[in-house]
Amino acid sequence: MFAISPVHGKPSLSKGQARLLVGKAKWLFAAAESGLDVVPTIGITRTAWDALQAERKSGTDSLRKVWVATLFKLVRPGTKPPELVVRTSAPRHVAGLQPARTGIAAPTNELEAVDTARPLGKAINAAFASYGPPLSAWATEAERDERDNQIVIVQATVDGRIGRFLTRNTTTGKLGPVPLPGEPLRKLPANTAELIRIIDAASGQHMSCVIAISGNSAQFVSARPLQVSAGAQLEASVERVESGVWTPADAVRRFNPAQLPQLLHPRLTDQNRAIPIASGLGVSPGAASGEVVFTPDDAARCRARGRHCILVVMETGPGDIEGMKAATGFVTARGGMTSHAAVVARITGKPCVAGLRTLQIDPEDGKCRIGETTISAGQHITIDGSEGAIYSGALPLSRPHIGGALSRLLDWADDTRTIAVRTNAETVEAARTALTFGAEGIGLARSEHMFFSGDRMRALRRLILSENEDDRATALEGLVDYQAADYAQLFQTMQNKPVTVRLFDPPLHEFLPRSEDDIEDTARALGLSVKALRARLQRLDEVNPMLGHRGVRLVITYPEILSMQVKALVAGVEAAMDNQDMPVNLEIMVPFVTSAREVSWVKSRVMDIVGNAPVFRRGANLAFGTMIELPRACLRAGDIAKEVDFISFGTNDLTQTTYGISRDDAPAFLATYHRRGLYDVDPFVTIDQRGVGELIKIAIERGRAVNPHLKIGICGEHAGETNSLRFFSSLAIDYVSCSPYRVPVARMVLAQSDT
Amino acid sequence: MFAISPVHGKPSLSKGQARLLVGKAKWLFAAAESGLDVVPTIGITRTAWDALQAERKSGTDSLRKVWVATLFKLVRPGTKPPELVVRTSAPRHVAGLQPARTGIAAPTNELEAVDTARPLGKAINAAFASYGPPLSAWATEAERDERDNQIVIVQATVDGRIGRFLTRNTTTGKLGPVPLPGEPLRKLPANTAELIRIIDAASGQHMSCVIAISGNSAQFVSARPLQVSAGAQLEASVERVESGVWTPADAVRRFNPAQLPQLLHPRLTDQNRAIPIASGLGVSPGAASGEVVFTPDDAARCRARGRHCILVVMETGPGDIEGMKAATGFVTARGGMTSHAAVVARITGKPCVAGLRTLQIDPEDGKCRIGETTISAGQHITIDGSEGAIYSGALPLSRPHIGGALSRLLDWADDTRTIAVRTNAETVEAARTALTFGAEGIGLARSEHMFFSGDRMRALRRLILSENEDDRATALEGLVDYQAADYAQLFQTMQNKPVTVRLFDPPLHEFLPRSEDDIEDTARALGLSVKALRARLQRLDEVNPMLGHRGVRLVITYPEILSMQVKALVAGVEAAMDNQDMPVNLEIMVPFVTSAREVSWVKSRVMDIVGNAPVFRRGANLAFGTMIELPRACLRAGDIAKEVDFISFGTNDLTQTTYGISRDDAPAFLATYHRRGLYDVDPFVTIDQRGVGELIKIAIERGRAVNPHLKIGICGEHAGETNSLRFFSSLAIDYVSCSPYRVPVARMVLAQSDT
Repeated sequence: MFAISPVHGKPSLSKGQARLLVGKAKWLFAAAESGLDVVPTIGITRTAWDALQAERKSGTDSLRKVWVATLFKLVRPGTKPPELVVRTSAPRHVAGLQPARTGIAAPTNELEAVDTARPLGKAINAAFASYGPPLSAWATEAERDERDNQIVIVQATVDGRIGRFLTRNTTTGKLGPVPLPGEPLRKLPANTAELIRIIDAASGQHMSCVIAISGNSAQFVSARPLQVSAGAQLEASVERVESGVWTPADAVRRFNPAQLPQLLHPRLTDQNRAIPIASGLGVSPGAASGEVVFTPDDAARCRARGRHCILVVMETGPGDIEGMKAATGFVTARGGMTSHAAVVARITGKPCVAGLRTLQIDPEDGKCRIGETTISAGQHITIDGSEGAIYSGALPLSRPHIGGALSRLLDWADDTRTIAVRTNAETVEAARTALTFGAEGIGLARSEHMFFSGDRMRALRRLILSENEDDRATALEGLVDYQAADYAQLFQTMQNKPVTVRLFDPPLHEFLPRSEDDIEDTARALGLSVKALRARLQRLDEVNPMLGHRGVRLVITYPEILSMQVKALVAGVEAAMDNQDMPVNLEIMVPFVTSAREVSWVKSRVMDIVGNAPVFRRGANLAFGTMIELPRACLRAGDIAKEVDFISFGTNDLTQTTYGISRDDAPAFLATYHRRGLYDVDPFVTIDQRGVGELIKIAIERGRAVNPHLKIGICGEHAGETNSLRFFSSLAIDYVSCSPYRVPVARMVLAQSDT
Repeated sequence: MFAISPVHGKPSLSKGQARLLVGKAKWLFAAAESGLDVVPTIGITRTAWDALQAERKSGTDSLRKVWVATLFKLVRPGTKPPELVVRTSAPRHVAGLQPARTGIAAPTNELEAVDTARPLGKAINAAFASYGPPLSAWATEAERDERDNQIVIVQATVDGRIGRFLTRNTTTGKLGPVPLPGEPLRKLPANTAELIRIIDAASGQHMSCVIAISGNSAQFVSARPLQVSAGAQLEASVERVESGVWTPADAVRRFNPAQLPQLLHPRLTDQNRAIPIASGLGVSPGAASGEVVFTPDDAARCRARGRHCILVVMETGPGDIEGMKAATGFVTARGGMTSHAAVVARITGKPCVAGLRTLQIDPEDGKCRIGETTISAGQHITIDGSEGAIYSGALPLSRPHIGGALSRLLDWADDTRTIAVRTNAETVEAARTALTFGAEGIGLARSEHMFFSGDRMRALRRLILSENEDDRATALEGLVDYQAADYAQLFQTMQNKPVTVRLFDPPLHEFLPRSEDDIEDTARALGLSVKALRARLQRLDEVNPMLGHRGVRLVITYPEILSMQVKALVAGVEAAMDNQDMPVNLEIMVPFVTSAREVSWVKSRVMDIVGNAPVFRRGANLAFGTMIELPRACLRAGDIAKEVDFISFGTNDLTQTTYGISRDDAPAFLATYHRRGLYDVDPFVTIDQRGVGELIKIAIERGRAVNPHLKIGICGEHAGETNSLRFFSSLAIDYVSCSPYRVPVARMVLAQSDT
């Protein structure tokens, strides 16, 4: 029990008492301490109130005397005690909180001041009760502490008329006073500006304030924080730094990185009123609406007519890439966070809902069923790739605005950040996007993604399906040129920033034709009978492609593919160096290794080809490294580190193998796991520190022990997720690499973790 | 340079010199030391010979004087030096070894004794050269040592006629003298028996001996070891123990467990009545049946699907080795006892029929002709590698009988063994076989295997494919009865030995219909349209079933399946206890866990059901445990161990996830890995100590740290493989569990490792 704003003079709370203040009590105290006119206010904690009640039963009165003395801080000397107001003062909004009780008669004697049958005691009791039921026996100490320290405030009833306003504009973030929605702004007294400044500095949030106006003077009554858009918060933060209220580090520290996606992707404006027709997994954030199409070809056709479309399919594959580029968003029945559609969506910044189990498509009829709703081709739907929701019709969307404020905040963040942020990109377009978001290099260029288009795909299929050296040699020749040109463009885009190119790592069959049409086309292109092609396809079929003939295994069985890739890389570096003054910094990365021997086998072949390339004698740099994405590679990192300049953790595959969970197949049981409380988080979204994380730590320790100069990175989706980034920032790593749209998140979180 | 058998008296070699003796030199020395009459023999190491030659160049003669003195040990005093014989004395047979050179004139002066242009020096030089070319720069220290210590022996030419014999019978192992094949046994002098006894004791092998007979006295000239059947070796070993030459521990220690499979081969039971379709040469004993395949790749594929196959080819070569390992037996058109196929077959203990002249293969059509019969790929045949016969269809085979000698050896092994040996079995038949082989319990009963038959399979499919609780409940009811009866039989077979039943762990789709016919049948049985069934099947389809909805994930999503299984187990225990006096010892094991929470979730449900079962109050015992088969489970073993009585490592899945290799898909690249020297061993055959092994060690350490009474086992095929067992024996484990035929191997290897 203490005076937050005594009837005269400034409050004099002890440091301990000041620390207890939460909610309204905090803003009232801040204003009063700044010398503003604040309505007389006292506060009492639950502990104190309970002690007062206990004292009543024991017949003593020492606490009661303190309480009555505190109540007197509300009474102007020589006047009659005013009517009182009792308010809750919760740190966060909780449903069921008791609204302010006004017009409470002041107690007429000491006993009445604590009697829960009389108006004041009754109101205080009710206010405490509205904070929620008693804690269970299992409550944590922190939960108990918080409950003990809950506060109820008692104020004198004010004279004068009431004025309400917001401290800042809810869209632009500019300092107010700003009228409340639907409420005209009354004329406010001159000292309101000072009040706003003080409350804004104390809260660091948009606030809704109440004052009492008498004459030309405002008396502060109450305030509560307001939920506003991330953009408005961001603008306000920058303005606080500019006006000297905050340091840049304050702005960085107080920013909630979970809000960044809102700033970088379109989103639904009217989410409250729309009811989804079905839900799947939100695997690429943002919202989009458009006509439903069922094939990539239809998507391309729709786009050609200047219309937006949502591609709704069972699943996608590399052959669909052109149509996917044309679509505004994707919905798939199968797959999860790492499905083809999800990966493409995140690279291109498009929303995607995957694993929509209720989706049934009848392409013959040009219809699909989503949940209980039948949708025809051409009808509009809206998808939310953050929530995984599908809505019928075209809902209004808000467009993102990457203004100067975000740039400035991220620049401030960079001042305290020590871990570099790179991006996962293989196209010039994605690389440029990432550069505008502040990427410091490419940490993962998935070379196999560079084949996701017509001609290249055909050439690659010829390679995979050839059954003798001659066929393979012919197929390879063409590929070197394609690749070299692509690499040259990518290197020039990145100038002298490091570019890590991962050698081919597909499960082979992802590149093979699946549909009847596709098989017929491919057979024709390869000069094979459909029967013969099918036989070859069957020989390549795998039971568990994720654990199959991929990564380094591919270049070990087909060394020609390795030669082709390295030759194309060297040619790409040469072409880029011919067009720029800065040296290209190429890093070649071998994926999916289990042992140092594989790494050294590939390294010696790479060096054989690269060793004679003059471009590396005139400035271009080459580093050789490997991806650590299997438990065995983590355990053997000591051997592996002797062979390489860098390692980069592929946390997605590492999670799949450490847990024995296929990301694609996980939806069938992960939801049940969450419901039954068996997993706290989805390990594919937030890194599992106690399993996967331990393997990463072991690998870093063993790797650095033998090679102190080892450069260490983390690439994959975890590298763009807030909680995972906080964990990574505690490790001795050099960089993370995430998809372009996650780069700002990584910059922000790593800066926050480093301060 | 030393006298192995001087012309007079016993040899007096230093301990260091005696240790150097290998090959013939060793047997000659043993005989001489025992006081037998041995032809005068001296030996010289490569090091000494090289030093003698170096000394010649330097012009000194101290070594030469020693050499000449040694040569004089071959000369009877007062007689003319005899003609000499020069022999190699290799520890192992190597192709190209120089045959004995006889009739070499004794050197007439000191210089001639070391001159490589004269007969003695020339013969010694040639003998050393025949051991093989100089070592490469990469040779190990052990290889250098071995080469430096190679020995050439020089003998005096003997008087008298030559006698040859074997020390033991090559079939029964009985002590000889036994005639050499195709050579009548001459009358041997009386002291031959003593010679045989001494050579047999010294060598511990079947030996082929040469003696010189003059009058009634034998003089020992030479001996070399003989490759004989495992059965003959075994009988000989037991006989050596019985006659006091060896201790039982010697017999156990010296037994090569790789020979056990030969002793345990199946045979045709109905041989009299079956008529072969063709006959060739029986070149590797035992009988087998399986699907006909025409290429090693097809064999690998077939095996990967868990099916037995017979590889039928014109001939085999070293490139086919991986596929040959996968086949259950071989048939070749060409070749005989020493063909590649025959040699590989005998090494791997598989039956082989070679030289089947009537075989014609048409791989394009997927057919072959054997005698007058046409057989298509996939059809079953049975082969008898002892008789060389080929039969159409899968004939019944009799399981091998562990004879008296093997039983005795294994019993001796058990005396020193501390780690228990259990078996993987779920049928009464397999359990009985394992018991005759000495299994001490069941370490892994794969409950899903108990559904591999008509009615049960249908009931299980109904369960998996049902889409609501009611359907599922109906399907489950029937299953409890089936299961209970199966369990009761299994428990009664094992009496009071522990039986570990693993809860359901299939990738679901393994149980689903695949062929058109099967799908139609199933649809009918379930009262569904084929289209509807296909839709359900598609929903259950998984991209990576090995990492999918299996193991504990299944019972967490379908708790009814857990209840059904536990109820059936309880009913099975009750039924068994009604029929026997001994208590059933049931152990319930949860597969494929990643965390302690999953274990505890299942445990509490199991205990809810079991808790009230009276049978566990009248003597039956229950333990609860989990299978550790994922890297995360190894790392979290400390948490998990708090929840369980035992853990058992599933090393196959642990290898798959640690390496990121699907065993099914591995054949596509593992052969190349071996060829390029990237993996020393197939990690699915021999446990990978440095990766998978480390995870196992971590888990044992963390598990025991929190639960010192934790029982620890290893189940899976590694638990029956020699090198893996040696590694496991170094861990603090309580038992291994392997397939029935591997039980004797495990008993033997664990005994050898423990002594």
